[in-house]
Amino acid sequence: MERVVESDSGSGESDVVLSLDSIRESLIRQEDTIVFSFIERAKFPLNSPAFEDSRCLHSGNSSSLTEFFVREIEIIQAKVGRYENPEENPFFLDNIPPSVFPTRKYPPALHPKALSVNINQRIWDIYFKELLPLFVKPGDDGNYVSTAASDLACLQALSRRIHYGKFVAEVKFRDAPQDYEPAIRAKDTEALMKLLTFEKVEEMVKKRVQKKAETFGQDVKCISGDDKSYKVDPLIVSRIYGEWLIPLTKLVEVEYLLRRLD
Amino acid sequence: MERVVESDSGSGESDVVLSLDSIRESLIRQEDTIVFSFIERAKFPLNSPAFEDSRCLHSGNSSSLTEFFVREIEIIQAKVGRYENPEENPFFLDNIPPSVFPTRKYPPALHPKALSVNINQRIWDIYFKELLPLFVKPGDDGNYVSTAASDLACLQALSRRIHYGKFVAEVKFRDAPQDYEPAIRAKDTEALMKLLTFEKVEEMVKKRVQKKAETFGQDVKCISGDDKSYKVDPLIVSRIYGEWLIPLTKLVEVEYLLRRLD
Repeated sequence: MERVVESDSGSGESDVVLSLDSIRESLIRQEDTIVFSFIERAKFPLNSPAFEDSRCLHSGNSSSLTEFFVREIEIIQAKVGRYENPEENPFFLDNIPPSVFPTRKYPPALHPKALSVNINQRIWDIYFKELLPLFVKPGDDGNYVSTAASDLACLQALSRRIHYGKFVAEVKFRDAPQDYEPAIRAKDTEALMKLLTFEKVEEMVKKRVQKKAETFGQDVKCISGDDKSYKVDPLIVSRIYGEWLIPLTKLVEVEYLLRRLD
Repeated sequence: MERVVESDSGSGESDVVLSLDSIRESLIRQEDTIVFSFIERAKFPLNSPAFEDSRCLHSGNSSSLTEFFVREIEIIQAKVGRYENPEENPFFLDNIPPSVFPTRKYPPALHPKALSVNINQRIWDIYFKELLPLFVKPGDDGNYVSTAASDLACLQALSRRIHYGKFVAEVKFRDAPQDYEPAIRAKDTEALMKLLTFEKVEEMVKKRVQKKAETFGQDVKCISGDDKSYKVDPLIVSRIYGEWLIPLTKLVEVEYLLRRLD
């Protein structure tokens, strides 16, 4: 489900067929991952010293615990080949270390310029400054290590979803290049945004993630009770999708399309 | 919820009060984490080359991709202080590197010998040989990096749950030392196992995790349909608890109690 549908064109070359169905299926499945990661993060309060303070003792740089953790984990993940997958975009790696394992070959599905579309710095800032305070309790319980691990899971799930816009844009472009080419050549981001916007679909996504947060964030008991409390507010999840995730995904789509004819 | 309840005894020393309620609450919350991690892992087929083959190119040792990944990640996690938390037990770290950040002080809740109870090697073997084939599809889709990351999440969730037996044993011992001491002194593991077994509670746990797998693993749609398919078979999750997780937790409880009077 996380993969792009591949087919052999019969010409001997392995051609990549992106279908809107397979992309939609992946995006729907990624909603579960995002909701799970929010629920897991909500076990802990904000714990802002983990990502605000520079409390590093020996590492020589002045990053927060969370930034140190994410940087180091990304290096390990790069070593096993994570960033050869066009669905994954690093937060900090300017120089991605090579994989120490034989890596999988991903048949090219995107325009080569896709690599230069990476809005993770923005996702990082939005996540810590705007999203996190919406769905976790304020406070500090000292559980910085677990918090950093949970934040990493959220950040990577959000980043994957948002950068999946590259695949969405590619398949939409391939379906109707004549619609997109004039706007791309004119660098008309507003026209592109209009072409990429389907309000009914967006409303459906927002409703579905609300229902997922209700379903996955309830207290499951053997004997059903009437108390409906959720580990993460379903309306907040819907709002995060509507105000941030969907617009940021479309931003990635536009950024990708602007490079599509290079 | 992940923390041990602490209270100030008023004597100036911070005393740790373990309550069976807080431990039960944590174990129940950990069920969600375990079910989430299984559902996320089930996105991928078995992908056995990730954890069976030794395909490492440059690292000089002959570990599988998954083992390499877990070892390296544990080093980073140790550096931010993960293993100073008595709830966390490493899989591979014989020499845990010191934290590079000021670490949280965990007031001692367990007997110092708790550190020597670590059955992660066994958990690792059982997970890959017995559990994983039960809840993922057979096959190989090449997604080894995502698979290794999902396996790590499952392994750490299982390890935390099973080693939480130390806290369970400690609170049970404190509640009725007179019941446990004779069996501990006699090293009578059978008698200890009997004292620690409550079949009704175990049945309730198995039913609850089944319901959690049904709830969290369903396809949530905006329009309700009749199709009930689950991402992970709820009966399998119940069986994994009954045949492995609960017995292994009790094994940890016994191992801990055997050292409790040292």
